[in-house]
Amino acid sequence: MKTIQDIQAMLEVFVNEREWQPYQSPKNLAMALTGEVGELVEHFQWISQSESQALSEEALLEVKDEMADVFIYLIRMADKLGIDLIEAAEVKIEKNAVKYPIEKSKGNQLKYSKLT
Amino acid sequence: MKTIQDIQAMLEVFVNEREWQPYQSPKNLAMALTGEVGELVEHFQWISQSESQALSEEALLEVKDEMADVFIYLIRMADKLGIDLIEAAEVKIEKNAVKYPIEKSKGNQLKYSKLT
Amino acid sequence: MKTIQDIQAMLEVFVNEREWQPYQSPKNLAMALTGEVGELVEHFQWISQSESQALSEEALLEVKDEMADVFIYLIRMADKLGIDLIEAAEVKIEKNAVKYPIEKSKGNQLKYSKLT
Amino acid sequence: MKTIQDIQAMLEVFVNEREWQPYQSPKNLAMALTGEVGELVEHFQWISQSESQALSEEALLEVKDEMADVFIYLIRMADKLGIDLIEAAEVKIEKNAVKYPIEKSKGNQLKYSKLT
Repeated sequence: MKTIQDIQAMLEVFVNEREWQPYQSPKNLAMALTGEVGELVEHFQWISQSESQALSEEALLEVKDEMADVFIYLIRMADKLGIDLIEAAEVKIEKNAVKYPIEKSKGNQLKYSKLT
Repeated sequence: MKTIQDIQAMLEVFVNEREWQPYQSPKNLAMALTGEVGELVEHFQWISQSESQALSEEALLEVKDEMADVFIYLIRMADKLGIDLIEAAEVKIEKNAVKYPIEKSKGNQLKYSKLT
Repeated sequence: MKTIQDIQAMLEVFVNEREWQPYQSPKNLAMALTGEVGELVEHFQWISQSESQALSEEALLEVKDEMADVFIYLIRMADKLGIDLIEAAEVKIEKNAVKYPIEKSKGNQLKYSKLT
Repeated sequence: MKTIQDIQAMLEVFVNEREWQPYQSPKNLAMALTGEVGELVEHFQWISQSESQALSEEALLEVKDEMADVFIYLIRMADKLGIDLIEAAEVKIEKNAVKYPIEKSKGNQLKYSKLT
């Protein structure tokens, strides 16, 4: 089974073969990430929440491709910045557990700054 | 070493403990992803491309947290939709290799629809 | 009553007083616009469509500020690029009327590329 | 010369003719806005700041259309929420003047929370 590191290595080859390194600054990659998220969101903008849980096979394949693009740019950005995404997520989940204590956050999605 | 599946499992516990499942439709998660990408981009909006390659330690830690948030919502969304992010990325890289043939794309970042 | 041109002029004074012109390239302004849209979306991510039509007075004031920020960067960007937003919108509405003919689009939100 | 109110009225006719009102909740419009901003950003993601100030005529026309789409959804959203964009911008510029005092912000783009 492949890992994030494998995808990262595949992307590096892909970018190097096309001599795209000069374009791929973290600033530019952040923009590219935005663009892909925009394309992803377009699939969900006019449908209801329940429809979003029951996409057609065709829509799901399109969504999968958009999510892959988001993931690809996130991995490229992490690579350029020397960030380990898995470790970053672990650390952030622990921070979020402090920001959103179970007893205060149960059953509501209030922003931590609005929890009382 | 942890995998995406491990993070996915940690997130599921986190969400269940707070009874947040009803909020986390794919539609809503796509919006949350957007919000986090917006926060990530804010770190890069006024700096130059070369500055973005040499962030201060403080800025890098903030960026790491924002990228973690993007990753977290991407994993949640993939989980809800039954998408394997690693496999999706592999498939997309192959598609991109066809859309952007090396001989046509070398040294330029033209969109595939503008390649001649 | 003030116009977009008045806001544009106010913004130019604001930016000049702070010597922010060097930061405000169209590329950077596009990023700033993204960041503000991300903040706007955060207000809507966990609520239902019907809740989004009945915001509390407090939420509405916050949303108003975020929309103002989006508008401000859109105006700055248009200014930098020599684009007249009102005229651009008029032209685009006409194009959209062709892309989405009434008889084909009535009652559905299919993307024009999927209309049959 | 047309005003925002004129565009707003044109859009209402456009939406009503296509019976799209049920889709256009503020939540959904916020998502559509995101999608359009994503398309706008794509035009700037691989170019330099100085290139973004000297777009080709072709690129400028495409950017103009994307900015129009952003503006259109912003106007629709404001309409749905009863927000006057011009007044909102005026109020926000005054708030920003307090958050970013000239003497502290001159020549830097530090976030207000980092100003000393």
